[in-house]
Amino acid sequence: MVETIRWTDDGVVMVDQTRLPREEVFVTCRTYREVADAIRRMVIRGAPAIGVAAAMGVALGVLRADGEDLDAQMEEICGELAGTRPTAVNLFWAIRRMKDVYGSMRGHPIEEVRRRLVEEARQVYREDIAINEAIGRNGADLVPDGKTVLTHCNAGALATAGYGTALGVIRAAVAAGKSIDVFADETRPFLQGARLTAWELQRDGIPTTLITDNMAGHFLKSGRIGCVVVGADRIAANGDVANKVGTYSVAVLAKENGIPFYVAAPVSTLDLSLASGDEIPIEQRDTAEVTTVFGTPVAPEGIPVENPAFDVTPHRYVTAIITERGVARPPFGESLARISGSGTTGGRF
Amino acid sequence: MVETIRWTDDGVVMVDQTRLPREEVFVTCRTYREVADAIRRMVIRGAPAIGVAAAMGVALGVLRADGEDLDAQMEEICGELAGTRPTAVNLFWAIRRMKDVYGSMRGHPIEEVRRRLVEEARQVYREDIAINEAIGRNGADLVPDGKTVLTHCNAGALATAGYGTALGVIRAAVAAGKSIDVFADETRPFLQGARLTAWELQRDGIPTTLITDNMAGHFLKSGRIGCVVVGADRIAANGDVANKVGTYSVAVLAKENGIPFYVAAPVSTLDLSLASGDEIPIEQRDTAEVTTVFGTPVAPEGIPVENPAFDVTPHRYVTAIITERGVARPPFGESLARISGSGTTGGRF
Repeated sequence: MVETIRWTDDGVVMVDQTRLPREEVFVTCRTYREVADAIRRMVIRGAPAIGVAAAMGVALGVLRADGEDLDAQMEEICGELAGTRPTAVNLFWAIRRMKDVYGSMRGHPIEEVRRRLVEEARQVYREDIAINEAIGRNGADLVPDGKTVLTHCNAGALATAGYGTALGVIRAAVAAGKSIDVFADETRPFLQGARLTAWELQRDGIPTTLITDNMAGHFLKSGRIGCVVVGADRIAANGDVANKVGTYSVAVLAKENGIPFYVAAPVSTLDLSLASGDEIPIEQRDTAEVTTVFGTPVAPEGIPVENPAFDVTPHRYVTAIITERGVARPPFGESLARISGSGTTGGRF
Repeated sequence: MVETIRWTDDGVVMVDQTRLPREEVFVTCRTYREVADAIRRMVIRGAPAIGVAAAMGVALGVLRADGEDLDAQMEEICGELAGTRPTAVNLFWAIRRMKDVYGSMRGHPIEEVRRRLVEEARQVYREDIAINEAIGRNGADLVPDGKTVLTHCNAGALATAGYGTALGVIRAAVAAGKSIDVFADETRPFLQGARLTAWELQRDGIPTTLITDNMAGHFLKSGRIGCVVVGADRIAANGDVANKVGTYSVAVLAKENGIPFYVAAPVSTLDLSLASGDEIPIEQRDTAEVTTVFGTPVAPEGIPVENPAFDVTPHRYVTAIITERGVARPPFGESLARISGSGTTGGRF
């Protein structure tokens, strides 16, 4: 599998996800501003991967900082990275984690602070892979054998440090010997399903069929889909889930057809400070994402566009939330609070 | 407004809908085979427009036939045209109508048969515009003032001889002084919403916002959408509606959010010979429609694809069916039978 992101002596190396699957190009971010720009332009995307990138961005920023008034520079670095994208809470979680480490190093020599921050960023990376493998183990049992799994957007290796959340569950189910195949929504406008999920799963040899987003309902009604598994960008205390736009539609259609709808996400995606999904900020992205495809115009010039990058799925449509610490079931207010407070893995909440 | 299709001395002239909105190119079909090919390649599309094209195709075929064994040639012409696309019943309705006229001319000189068939095709064209205007009048009252109308695919002037079915209702509501705007689903894979609906309504000065298909749910939940209006390719006796893939999803999401879901279609779209939508044949189209956009690949090579061009919306999601003879309400088994048997306009069934 291609590496999504990697810390190197030259800087932070990422595969450019705006150019997959047509070109496999790696970009090296040599400054924290370049990392911020890569997040903003979706060279790297996916809530957990954005968290890893932000952690590496903070480390890179402090590594390259001149040491004059480091506190102020740390604030500037974190502020710039935090301002890239508003919805995925993993971004803020990772920056908070790096800030805490920075705070704990007060009074230490700058070289030691730098080493510690780089080590923490690499630790965030390593943990993310382990977390995804645990999510996979916890979720594999939920996937019905002999049926099709529908997924939306890309919650795969490319959305994380590796292995993936939703696709981690699928990989673990396949590894456990289940006979499943995958339907991937193409996920307009950025086409993460067509470009990234189809590509990832094809390389893994997991049978995958590409459909347009508006076909999901038709197939959910057809009886061949056994469950839906998606990732998440932020989960509120009541279990409302912000995820790639279109997730809400899939969830409603799954419920209407009696099909389980699972969300796979690390605990770092929980934002228990928000009572409900109504409080989650929804990013509006550039209209050109909708009116053009790889630079080709697909709409009349000057047509107004809405481009919310995410939507909120109310918790009543969510069958369960699969985390590295176990599977949360309704009522989510209680199960998510228990998971958030616990350190165990593999439990049922 | 651009003319969708026109009978000329040179042949059947159509605006090439595969090239809109980037290029306004007209093609002239000089043989019935060229008309069949244009229907197959979606140079012209939309159930009522396909009906008009088929009628003109039959007339053109007989006009160009050499007169040797005309019955056999008529069979071949009708067979070729009927084999172009399986779902829209208007195609078969128009061919049936031309066959009936042909049958009624038995024994007449061939020049008279030809004149009569050309006249009938032009009559189908003229009637279609009048029918759409009646659909508009009958539906305008149903559109809530001061709200947004959501539509899927293109059921506009370009899908008909002119004025449109779903967009006819919108045009009539605007003409009646209602303050409305439109959200147009882009409608992958063929992008009829982005390319055709947005273009048509922009030219008419009706405020229109383009969204991707997977955003429809988000906006149906937001409270700004007052109703959904779509067209239809075939309506079964129980009110089940085959229409462009994605219509089913929009209907479920509308119902889930308490928003009326209207289908606007001529009586020629009714197929009361089918008890339910389960019997409607669903066309599978080429995978390249999904894996490429205007020739640009958007998915990894060799990825399997499903491409059903239509889906079936069960009648329980349909608030009403707006026809030129009036508005049919549930139970549709009764209201559609009454509409089909009546010749009145503007009634309530």
